Amino acid sequence: MARPDGRSADTRRRLLDAALEEFAREGFRRATIERICRRAKANIAAVHYHFGDKGRLYAAVVEHADERAEAERPRERAAASSPEERLRSHVTAFLRRLLDPKRPTWMAQLLAHELLEPTPALDRLVRRRIRANHDQIAGIIRELAPHLSREAARLATLSVIAQCVFYRHSAAIVSRLYPDLHPAQEIDRLADHVTRFSLAAIGSLEKPREDVAS
Amino acid sequence: MARPDGRSADTRRRLLDAALEEFAREGFRRATIERICRRAKANIAAVHYHFGDKGRLYAAVVEHADERAEAERPRERAAASSPEERLRSHVTAFLRRLLDPKRPTWMAQLLAHELLEPTPALDRLVRRRIRANHDQIAGIIRELAPHLSREAARLATLSVIAQCVFYRHSAAIVSRLYPDLHPAQEIDRLADHVTRFSLAAIGSLEKPREDVAS
Repeated sequence: MARPDGRSADTRRRLLDAALEEFAREGFRRATIERICRRAKANIAAVHYHFGDKGRLYAAVVEHADERAEAERPRERAAASSPEERLRSHVTAFLRRLLDPKRPTWMAQLLAHELLEPTPALDRLVRRRIRANHDQIAGIIRELAPHLSREAARLATLSVIAQCVFYRHSAAIVSRLYPDLHPAQEIDRLADHVTRFSLAAIGSLEKPREDVAS
Repeated sequence: MARPDGRSADTRRRLLDAALEEFAREGFRRATIERICRRAKANIAAVHYHFGDKGRLYAAVVEHADERAEAERPRERAAASSPEERLRSHVTAFLRRLLDPKRPTWMAQLLAHELLEPTPALDRLVRRRIRANHDQIAGIIRELAPHLSREAARLATLSVIAQCVFYRHSAAIVSRLYPDLHPAQEIDRLADHVTRFSLAAIGSLEKPREDVAS
């Protein structure tokens, strides 16, 4: 009696792996169930049995990729003392997640497709993961500059995030502009730059100034 | 005798328009000549006659999109006096190119696909357009902080560029984090933030400090 269950779990697993590969490469809209089945050596009935439809298979894949990415996430150094040190530690860990060549890239690829053509999976990722990362940086910035308006604080938070994601998102441009810059091998140096650049900027934004001015 | 030439130029034009739409939507690898021909009401022989092959059709499309984007590019204010003012003016124009909802989006879509899966078209775009934008910002930063090392200056340049492209590239995330922030309608305010954030940071980087330190 164990065999059919085992086979079935195995089929489900093969479908998930094949679907991860297909969705990461093609994005949701262009991925085909046919190619996924071919790669998984399964048939379309198995997709229906295990997942329902293409949309639910995709949701399961994003969930699965997100959990694996989270499990392999490098740990940040525990509670650094000052907010400055915590910003550095957070930026370093963020760049490491974005750039580490040893980490699997499906999550980054799935996300890149979601940015081009969002699906409900992006809403879930923002709710479950992206907002938490944002909130951590926002919290550090509030500590660094408690007098910033809500608006100034959120733009500063986005400036920090922007400087990190750029090295992943625009990697193909960075490598063409600067063939001798290898972000994945210089994470500490990039983190040092982003941290110092941002701390200096945040320090100066702290000076009381009306946001309405332009 | 004018008619066949006219028809031929017309077919070429229809193929270019259909190919622009197809490549912007699908990217180079996934685009199909079959769909382009169907949309252009032309046959595959016309593609071969006018362009040669898919690769050369794509090169013509990127060239064409780039020229149109350049022609419709909002002009920057002429020679602002100080480097600070020029940075503001450049950042504003850059954000306007990236975000203006009235501007066609093919170039942005073609570029997004190129960032995911680069082709030789990206090398040409970097050589002809992206590097010029980068060099203008780098030039302003050299004026603002002439004592920066080459390395510090280029990381600062990338930090400015990163803060601008973020609002286009990560638009789907920004709108989910902050439903009340509408970048395309707040370009001057975003440009003000990016300019002030960057000027403060660059001013502080100017203080002589060894880049080797960490």
